Amino acid sequence: MSRQVEKRDFPVSEVRRYLEPGPIVLVSSKWKGKTNIMTMGWHTVMEFTPSLVGCVIAGSNHSFHMIRKSGECVINLPTTALTDVVVKIGNTSGAEIDKFEKFALTPDKAHKVEAPLIRECHANFECRIYDDTLVDKYNFFIFEVVKANVVVSPKHPETLHYTGDGVFMVSGKIISRKALFRPGML
Amino acid sequence: MSRQVEKRDFPVSEVRRYLEPGPIVLVSSKWKGKTNIMTMGWHTVMEFTPSLVGCVIAGSNHSFHMIRKSGECVINLPTTALTDVVVKIGNTSGAEIDKFEKFALTPDKAHKVEAPLIRECHANFECRIYDDTLVDKYNFFIFEVVKANVVVSPKHPETLHYTGDGVFMVSGKIISRKALFRPGML
Repeated sequence: MSRQVEKRDFPVSEVRRYLEPGPIVLVSSKWKGKTNIMTMGWHTVMEFTPSLVGCVIAGSNHSFHMIRKSGECVINLPTTALTDVVVKIGNTSGAEIDKFEKFALTPDKAHKVEAPLIRECHANFECRIYDDTLVDKYNFFIFEVVKANVVVSPKHPETLHYTGDGVFMVSGKIISRKALFRPGML
Repeated sequence: MSRQVEKRDFPVSEVRRYLEPGPIVLVSSKWKGKTNIMTMGWHTVMEFTPSLVGCVIAGSNHSFHMIRKSGECVINLPTTALTDVVVKIGNTSGAEIDKFEKFALTPDKAHKVEAPLIRECHANFECRIYDDTLVDKYNFFIFEVVKANVVVSPKHPETLHYTGDGVFMVSGKIISRKALFRPGML
């Protein structure tokens, strides 16, 4: 049985807190009764309100059509506790295996979308497609984050940041320069 | 006089090595004889070849029009040696000050664009606007990296990753899982 950790509702307008530093994420989806998970590293925050995140999801991914057809997904934030799972999920195809079962991950029911949350992840961002204008040309989806839940502690999880060639940078120390900022520039 | 460090030409198809982990970057531009610099955290790699990077540059930035009109910019990668400068550049407007002069940065001549490189940065990615389809709606520019130069050593610089509220995550340890990857999935 999976460890149940406490998560709290988090303001969708503040998801940059987790996504702007550039972590690799796991994207879960559901279509016609089947679920899937993919790893994804090409994403950026685009707006606070509505809470928009742009992502490249290559058409060769089994998840591509599941997400496009369902119009939904969940962006899940893994920590270094899941490093090997992150790699293995990226190595396999949902056309062949059930990734939740294969990698002993727990699909939790989401609040606003049909796609499942990954319980073992530090944060779960429920998304709906907001704009698919650039999907045909660049595989670029713009999602709106419609619900966010994050683990209460630690505040700064140890996240994975991919550099290509099988190498990850792990998030390091936290430094504040808040005193230097003009308030409107935070 | 600024310290001159050795930089080498770097394949533009591999800039994900530096940008995918999500560092804050400094964007330099030139228009009508004036230069400017802005900080930017909302960006993502979009393609290897051509080497595409998508970025959100808010219309309120003095750089927005300089980049849009010139069709060019340089994405420069600062390290923690420049932490305070990164914040101060984000706090000020190029409409009022010359940021190269004010922050003692050295504008070096770029190879393929008119916008200057920032010598004190670890890497310089010369960019041309590739697609401005989403600029009016989302301030989202797609740039093509046409030339890249990076400092030879260290291979993994200490970069800054913004989390909002004046707080940065500093890049941490490097871990390889290359042995776990299927070659096509690196």
